Amino acid sequence: MSRTRGRVTLPVQSIFSEDAKTFTERWGADVLRLDGNKTPDEHSKSLDVKICTTYTPVKGDNDFAMEHMDECQQVLLMSRHFLAKNTTLTIDFLDGFYREQFVADYIHDPKRWWEVIDRTAGKTVPSHKWEYDRIHDILTITDAIPFHEYTVSFFVFIIWDPTQMYELLSDDLTNEPHHIPIDVRQPLSAAYSKERLKKWLSEHSHTDIVRFTSFFYHYILIFNEEANEQYTNWFGYGTTVSTQALETFEQEYGYALKPEDLVDNGYFNSTFRVPTKAYRDYTHFIQRFVSRRAKELVDMVHAAGKQASMFFGESWIGTEPYGPYFQDISVDCISGNVYNGTTLRMLSDIPGIHDTEGRLLPYLSEETFEDENHACITASANWIAARRAMMRSPLDRLTFDGDPGTASSSTTFVNYIEKITDEYRTIYDNVKGRKPYSGLKVAVLNSWGTLRSWQAYTVLPGRSYKKTNPYFGILEALSGSPVDVCFLSFADIRRDGVPDDVDVIINAGDAGTAFSGGREWLDADLVTIIRKWVYDGGGFIGIGEPSAVLHGGRFFQLADVLGVDRELGFTLSTAKYHIVPRLAHFITDEHWGAYQLGEGTPDVYALTGSTEIIDYSNDEVHIAANAYGDGRGVYFSALANDPDNTRLLLRALYYASHKEDNYYIWNADNINCEVHAYPESGKYAILNNSDSPQTTDVYDGNGSRETINLEPREIMWRIM
Amino acid sequence: MSRTRGRVTLPVQSIFSEDAKTFTERWGADVLRLDGNKTPDEHSKSLDVKICTTYTPVKGDNDFAMEHMDECQQVLLMSRHFLAKNTTLTIDFLDGFYREQFVADYIHDPKRWWEVIDRTAGKTVPSHKWEYDRIHDILTITDAIPFHEYTVSFFVFIIWDPTQMYELLSDDLTNEPHHIPIDVRQPLSAAYSKERLKKWLSEHSHTDIVRFTSFFYHYILIFNEEANEQYTNWFGYGTTVSTQALETFEQEYGYALKPEDLVDNGYFNSTFRVPTKAYRDYTHFIQRFVSRRAKELVDMVHAAGKQASMFFGESWIGTEPYGPYFQDISVDCISGNVYNGTTLRMLSDIPGIHDTEGRLLPYLSEETFEDENHACITASANWIAARRAMMRSPLDRLTFDGDPGTASSSTTFVNYIEKITDEYRTIYDNVKGRKPYSGLKVAVLNSWGTLRSWQAYTVLPGRSYKKTNPYFGILEALSGSPVDVCFLSFADIRRDGVPDDVDVIINAGDAGTAFSGGREWLDADLVTIIRKWVYDGGGFIGIGEPSAVLHGGRFFQLADVLGVDRELGFTLSTAKYHIVPRLAHFITDEHWGAYQLGEGTPDVYALTGSTEIIDYSNDEVHIAANAYGDGRGVYFSALANDPDNTRLLLRALYYASHKEDNYYIWNADNINCEVHAYPESGKYAILNNSDSPQTTDVYDGNGSRETINLEPREIMWRIM
Repeated sequence: MSRTRGRVTLPVQSIFSEDAKTFTERWGADVLRLDGNKTPDEHSKSLDVKICTTYTPVKGDNDFAMEHMDECQQVLLMSRHFLAKNTTLTIDFLDGFYREQFVADYIHDPKRWWEVIDRTAGKTVPSHKWEYDRIHDILTITDAIPFHEYTVSFFVFIIWDPTQMYELLSDDLTNEPHHIPIDVRQPLSAAYSKERLKKWLSEHSHTDIVRFTSFFYHYILIFNEEANEQYTNWFGYGTTVSTQALETFEQEYGYALKPEDLVDNGYFNSTFRVPTKAYRDYTHFIQRFVSRRAKELVDMVHAAGKQASMFFGESWIGTEPYGPYFQDISVDCISGNVYNGTTLRMLSDIPGIHDTEGRLLPYLSEETFEDENHACITASANWIAARRAMMRSPLDRLTFDGDPGTASSSTTFVNYIEKITDEYRTIYDNVKGRKPYSGLKVAVLNSWGTLRSWQAYTVLPGRSYKKTNPYFGILEALSGSPVDVCFLSFADIRRDGVPDDVDVIINAGDAGTAFSGGREWLDADLVTIIRKWVYDGGGFIGIGEPSAVLHGGRFFQLADVLGVDRELGFTLSTAKYHIVPRLAHFITDEHWGAYQLGEGTPDVYALTGSTEIIDYSNDEVHIAANAYGDGRGVYFSALANDPDNTRLLLRALYYASHKEDNYYIWNADNINCEVHAYPESGKYAILNNSDSPQTTDVYDGNGSRETINLEPREIMWRIM
Repeated sequence: MSRTRGRVTLPVQSIFSEDAKTFTERWGADVLRLDGNKTPDEHSKSLDVKICTTYTPVKGDNDFAMEHMDECQQVLLMSRHFLAKNTTLTIDFLDGFYREQFVADYIHDPKRWWEVIDRTAGKTVPSHKWEYDRIHDILTITDAIPFHEYTVSFFVFIIWDPTQMYELLSDDLTNEPHHIPIDVRQPLSAAYSKERLKKWLSEHSHTDIVRFTSFFYHYILIFNEEANEQYTNWFGYGTTVSTQALETFEQEYGYALKPEDLVDNGYFNSTFRVPTKAYRDYTHFIQRFVSRRAKELVDMVHAAGKQASMFFGESWIGTEPYGPYFQDISVDCISGNVYNGTTLRMLSDIPGIHDTEGRLLPYLSEETFEDENHACITASANWIAARRAMMRSPLDRLTFDGDPGTASSSTTFVNYIEKITDEYRTIYDNVKGRKPYSGLKVAVLNSWGTLRSWQAYTVLPGRSYKKTNPYFGILEALSGSPVDVCFLSFADIRRDGVPDDVDVIINAGDAGTAFSGGREWLDADLVTIIRKWVYDGGGFIGIGEPSAVLHGGRFFQLADVLGVDRELGFTLSTAKYHIVPRLAHFITDEHWGAYQLGEGTPDVYALTGSTEIIDYSNDEVHIAANAYGDGRGVYFSALANDPDNTRLLLRALYYASHKEDNYYIWNADNINCEVHAYPESGKYAILNNSDSPQTTDVYDGNGSRETINLEPREIMWRIM
């Protein structure tokens, strides 16, 4: 039985089931979440819980969709590259796509809306040089140039919602009717979406909270001919693109977008691409539209005396919780998945929302509990990663996904979650609304800034990639480190300079990506502002290929700040004499053993003898620091997620900002342990983030030391 | 005592010494090479050898140089980057340079000849915004932009020949007078260089061969303030650049070169840079000048009844033996260093020269023979690497550098060299003038083509770099493989297409370099010609980042040919399902164990399911093949120098050209062994390239198999 109660949402199959009752008690739930197809009745009011019911505004009603197939959502796809072998090239443009997901849109004149591009020459083929065949779904280019590659950008209708598709295909339920998402930009669909919600609200009068499984546009998820995910971009605006949207955009912005502005060479403006002005304009255009329409639905919910909650995921495109229009939607709560500290902060830091809810791992299902031990390990790893982020910025609510009933037989698991929920509520009580002690303030600098707070290096949250792992340690370290964190875009810095309260800027990523910045660094003003700021005492940490673009004899445009640059082969003639690492350095002072920075940027070298080389092997620098006027630069070749790296980054932050003297304030010298202090509540906590007992020296706010023993995963609360 | 005699040049301190006599006999020398300061007398004619004497046309006579300091050679240097902290920036432009090597040239108006560049903005600073101070060697920019970086490109005079500098500094002989190289572009120096040679020839009437230690311009070698090599580029034209040269260039070409055309961001047109038109024009301009002036000296040598030999190294800039003007010089012999098979072929393949001489390792000195064993290992490794290249294209002559007398006490070494020289002469007799059997013809494609035959990936011959090692296996493998090799430039292919007799094209190198091709691949015509050629049956092998430049949704512009592309972070949203390597493949059929391809290009992925993945690990493709019409592409992520890789490349060549059926003709199945056949002489040789005994199946011209045992390093000659 839980010692405390509240701030936990329990997904249930039925409100009055034995499972619901048991888990409500065991985990102290105060909200039950029910599938939207189920209707709570009057008896629900007798329970000491609130009822949350899910609702999806644009899918789930196929009758309407099938009667209005011209109002289906569209996508502007790009075919694969097709090679011309002679002057006639026939393109089976749907080749490789899953035909159950898309049908070509011939309603809107392909000659106006489609684009054929000679990718070898980089030129659009005039529309009189190609013909389409709607019977066979092919397009034929006459006057093709042999051995050039061509692509077709073409509109399709989405005839199957990808989330349902994923679920049905996973469960082999191929006979279910396919959900067809409607487009609220279309007049009948817009009206219908409101009527439908009105009806739904009237049928769900005993629901307290309407949980929108987001709003209108699913992040882009394109399946291949074998019905496997082919293109998955959690940030992708693909489903928002329609002929109607493009026409309206032109009216609003005074210029027309080309298909290429949206398909972008087949990269579809991946969040890793440095955004173009056209794409930024387009996303703002969509965000305004989505927030306007979403607000209409939320207003209806409020008018019905209920709260509105939004799921941060799935059909969230255009709602960007850190964007300029999100507040207009006026949702009361936001809910999302917690995979680690980064994703927790992505939820808990959302401005203006006082009810943030995080869904912990594992997914509760029969399959999960086939291996009870693994389920517990997953829960524990997830909680430990989330907890340290919670100490900085707590979620207002925890939940799980799936069916808690499947956990019934796993006593260990149920007990463990009971412990977690209690531990969480204690944290919440001590932490919420109190500013934790922070040694300094960090700004993470990339093309996206605040808009994509805690969302850098993400393809789909929770998914790992060889190319992103070298950067995954950065946000994860920051999510639970005793520092304040903000996100800045290059545009912010150009416009306003570096905010006064920032101590350290981090720029990290692969060359050419939106996270490193690519061509942004060709802007002398940007470079100058940052150089001056560091020179005057700021700290700059570069990871991977920071500020990288080949220009003026440098690859890293801030090579002078960092004291290092990357060898691309053009300076092999220049001898590299500076290869000897320092015997000791503040940044690595708590480190022993080999560094596990991750597979990062190779071939980095020290520019001069004054560069402080900290780690050097395999003929390259992996960690370095550099004095730059009154400021400092620090370089890491990678920073994968690892407790060692978390500590390296923390020390680097103190070093970069010349605050080494404050390092032993509210800190622990064992890298598995962390201290979080809350002067406003007079309490502090010592965390053991590891699965083994730890002994650590703990330093209080005066730097006084005490030796502490901690149980595995323990959180120890103490009075100051 | 050597069994055979001839084709060996012996460096000697004195013609009549006991050492000279001994080693002439032991190693079968027929030429003695003497330092140019020594004068052979009439008695030399009594010996059964020719006398070769070294001569350096532009240095060694300081009296003239010091009287004509305005005719010293110049260099256009670029200062390091200097950071402006306010609007006045004073640049100590010689900072970091070795002041004994250079003095600033104020004779030629700096306001006209120097260039100050704002590297942050990428703009030249008008000359009225800066002033120089010749007393303090500083330059001051007014109206500098704070926190921009600036460089100064400025002329200096060379006041110390870098080779002599290197020698004197190595031997700590700091009191010797510094050799000052004169510039034969200057009128007095030009006349003097001829007068001096005339006098020298008259004093060396008993010399048979004049060995020019190259001609006029030393490859660029810039020392730093600690007198260490700072910039070393064996291909660098730095010392040819003078105000006079630039004026003459403008007259000849009708346009003026800017300093930036030559300093090139501080890369100084490294051979790794894709050459600009301006730089190509300049090198042609210099080559014509050098060959014209060199010919004048060679003509004098011929008129004196002697032969002229040129050292391929040191002051060779502008002589390019594979260039269009080299034949005009009319030297009789060429001599250079042999570090391996590649450098041997670089010498032995020079067209139009019938007396090519290669200098084997080790350097014969007291220091070398302090470790006799190491000296023997060096000699053996060098010979084994050179020998297989010799089988394809023999040198006409071997030699050593240093003093054979220092080897006197090392009987093992002297015996081993005796064996090598005999083995060499047998090879020469069997091989010279007979076309070896070749299974196919390979073209190595890069920006330089023929001009830099066997010189790709080179900073200074014999030096190894982390960035070049992944490519060192390519030319080294080809140098001794039973295939014909040619070198093509992108311009060649644009102009003439792929030559009819080429079976396979290799394009290999880091993205953006002259060896991969960088921006050359934006040329649709180039791409189209190669695609069509492969499609019609050609083979294309890409190594590292072949055809790499981001364009049209591809990084490798020939991704369609190769079946692979590299992930830069922009296609992470695209699932990569094709990750399973074939169980067996022709290319890896003789391979066992882990691949040692070297630290090459990461993050390469298969484009489609039809790509034949051959090696996949660490989430990336290392070897792949791909059918492309009637042709094939093959990809390697690297190809470091290693016997295994030599064999992989050979098999890849056969596979790419669809000649697998011919693979077992004149071949050996043990990767340590190779077969070279000479149908014209009716002989073939079986080589053991390893230091251990080997057993191999050998296949003759009909593919008949025989099992052969070979001693360590053995070469076995057989009659067909």
